[in-house]
Amino acid sequence: MLETVDLRNDVPSITIDADRLMADLRRLAEFGKVGTGVHRRALSAVDMEARRWLLERMRAAGLEAEIDGIGNVYGRTPHARRILIGSHSDTVPDGGWLDGAMGVVIGIEIARAFMAQGGSGEVGLEIVSFSDEEGCFSTLLGSRSFVGELDETVAGLTVNEDGVSLADALDRAGLSGMVRRRLDPGVHLAFLEAHIEQGPVLESLGARIGCVTAIAGLRGWKIRFEGRADHAGTTPMALRADAGAALCDFAVRFADFGRTNGSAHSVWNGGAITLLPGAHNVVPASAEYLLTIRDPGEDVLDRLTVGVETIGNAVASRHGVGWHKAELFDLAPARMDMGLRTEIEAAVRLYGTEPLSMPSGAGHDSMVLARHVPSAMLFVPSIGGRSHHVGEDTDERDIVLGARVLAEAVTRLCRKIQ
Amino acid sequence: MLETVDLRNDVPSITIDADRLMADLRRLAEFGKVGTGVHRRALSAVDMEARRWLLERMRAAGLEAEIDGIGNVYGRTPHARRILIGSHSDTVPDGGWLDGAMGVVIGIEIARAFMAQGGSGEVGLEIVSFSDEEGCFSTLLGSRSFVGELDETVAGLTVNEDGVSLADALDRAGLSGMVRRRLDPGVHLAFLEAHIEQGPVLESLGARIGCVTAIAGLRGWKIRFEGRADHAGTTPMALRADAGAALCDFAVRFADFGRTNGSAHSVWNGGAITLLPGAHNVVPASAEYLLTIRDPGEDVLDRLTVGVETIGNAVASRHGVGWHKAELFDLAPARMDMGLRTEIEAAVRLYGTEPLSMPSGAGHDSMVLARHVPSAMLFVPSIGGRSHHVGEDTDERDIVLGARVLAEAVTRLCRKIQ
Repeated sequence: MLETVDLRNDVPSITIDADRLMADLRRLAEFGKVGTGVHRRALSAVDMEARRWLLERMRAAGLEAEIDGIGNVYGRTPHARRILIGSHSDTVPDGGWLDGAMGVVIGIEIARAFMAQGGSGEVGLEIVSFSDEEGCFSTLLGSRSFVGELDETVAGLTVNEDGVSLADALDRAGLSGMVRRRLDPGVHLAFLEAHIEQGPVLESLGARIGCVTAIAGLRGWKIRFEGRADHAGTTPMALRADAGAALCDFAVRFADFGRTNGSAHSVWNGGAITLLPGAHNVVPASAEYLLTIRDPGEDVLDRLTVGVETIGNAVASRHGVGWHKAELFDLAPARMDMGLRTEIEAAVRLYGTEPLSMPSGAGHDSMVLARHVPSAMLFVPSIGGRSHHVGEDTDERDIVLGARVLAEAVTRLCRKIQ
Repeated sequence: MLETVDLRNDVPSITIDADRLMADLRRLAEFGKVGTGVHRRALSAVDMEARRWLLERMRAAGLEAEIDGIGNVYGRTPHARRILIGSHSDTVPDGGWLDGAMGVVIGIEIARAFMAQGGSGEVGLEIVSFSDEEGCFSTLLGSRSFVGELDETVAGLTVNEDGVSLADALDRAGLSGMVRRRLDPGVHLAFLEAHIEQGPVLESLGARIGCVTAIAGLRGWKIRFEGRADHAGTTPMALRADAGAALCDFAVRFADFGRTNGSAHSVWNGGAITLLPGAHNVVPASAEYLLTIRDPGEDVLDRLTVGVETIGNAVASRHGVGWHKAELFDLAPARMDMGLRTEIEAAVRLYGTEPLSMPSGAGHDSMVLARHVPSAMLFVPSIGGRSHHVGEDTDERDIVLGARVLAEAVTRLCRKIQ
């Protein structure tokens, strides 16, 4: 937890310019525009154009800015110790205009206001747009590179949806051989990320700002049941080894187990099913299930994982089929820093509204940063809970409120950190 | 039911030649040979080669033979009234060497023996190899053409897996404009079909000949659940409309319903599942299920159909999703003629073994013929219950026994029909 003391120093309250903020956000949405949304895959030509534009906006704000060897864009005030603010500027295919972008642009606006108001005090700011949060090459690529968790062999091994390797993409983006900047615990004091909720909770409860308590961990498996391909007309039910029936039985039983054994924040998803051979007249010989589970508590994830194993065995035995699971994801949950949360919550209340404490079900760059530096996130509501879609949107008043709250929290931190 | 009277006339017992039968069967398997199996899609070049070879074998047996405008091959003795014997000689992709072919070749051997023994009596034989039983263009195409159930517009509308229309395929096969022969109730007295079981029942009970009581009816639907594509991390379980979860729930509940409300012969199959968008981090917005049900009783099929409807409504309501079903198949069950079954059963017992009365879960040309003329089928065991596969096989002794039993049943019918 970040320890703070009220120093009542001479740092003025950072006052953001709502029009300037929204203008920058709308301008950024022009790069890769698709209808009301954006298609800006990490390290693509249009993503690099957007990053160079962010670089220029940072420089115009008076920051010392650069793009590093993984595509992360950084802009910093001259202070020796700095609060990191940011998110990512890449998008999913045909994604929305706010996912990631809002947090980066809010960061730039706060730094611009901070510099315009003199940039005084002991503590400065560093704004960052991480590369490839959305996993075009590898999920949370830029933030993992920044904290030093990126395996250096990854560049040659990972390819994007067009079959281009990360090494080739970095080369085409002009980033080959450039240094990858690293987090320095002596310099970087905290990480703050503003983001859209990407879910329906704030809207459904009428709350305008969410204060994130933890980012849910994610585990995922490709679960395969192996039966036998029999003629679906001539084989009595009792003589079948039906992999498809086993899969459906597994899905229903795991959902029952999750409702009983998960936490209030547990979610799971059976996102894809493949039956082979997939014909109406052949009993499915093999059935594959893409299952993910998420929860902010490692203990809950452990309990649900035991459920996967137990139910898999029970179902396989009942249906006379084999089964195995291959791990696809294992991301540990990340707790947000209590000291930073306290400052954000106080800032929300200054604006006459109550923050909603909530976990994040989705992964974010903060998940990676939190392992190395005190980190916190605030959420603004997503209209209809919609995200990863060109229809993704947030009321402009909520975006501006989110920026003001974050600016106030940053002010409080700059005044308090010794 | 076919009425018979014992006339004790001078028709000699038809004595088949096992070696000649097996040699023909092995020769036919050379057309389209794939390893131990056969790939002979209806109206393909190799299917037509096989049909022209069958034509020649029929002529060599002393039959008057022809191929008609749908690809059916017929060979008849000179008698004005005839018992039809046959099956089909097309196969599924990479299918077995016996499915259909065995029934045709047994028919030719019986007619050859009949002719060689003088072909005496009032009643003769007609051997047939129907076209496209396996539905390369349209299931049971040749037999439906023969009984007059084929919609004449079908040729222009149906295409095979290579996108070739039936009209073009008939043209390439040299059959365009040729007459399609039709069943004549004054001429064709009965239809007999010998076939492999294509399932494990005879083998598992140690029986050598199955006497088919009825061919199961088949109903099938494409069932679609329509939910909403939400983020699988940020959307609480209670706020989802998960089409995939609804589908799995449906499958499990329908299986429970079928076990309780079906007959001992009921079978069902969920052969294919498609979830959209099919990503690990998106709640399935739509889920499609390919469901077929089969039973020899129309009343049982009706009961199971009510189950589909009831469970579909219950599941859709529980999961907050929409649903609808599109009918894919509706084939009525076909009862086999009791008079013909009695003669086959008597013939089996002559060979010192007990026939097993059983329904056929798979569809056959007899299903179509039975609506127009007394029909019956006998089954020989499939090794391992395997069919529609290059590994499909039957013990040669069982094939020969099947042929002898059918020859004896034909003898008895020729002696009895007035």
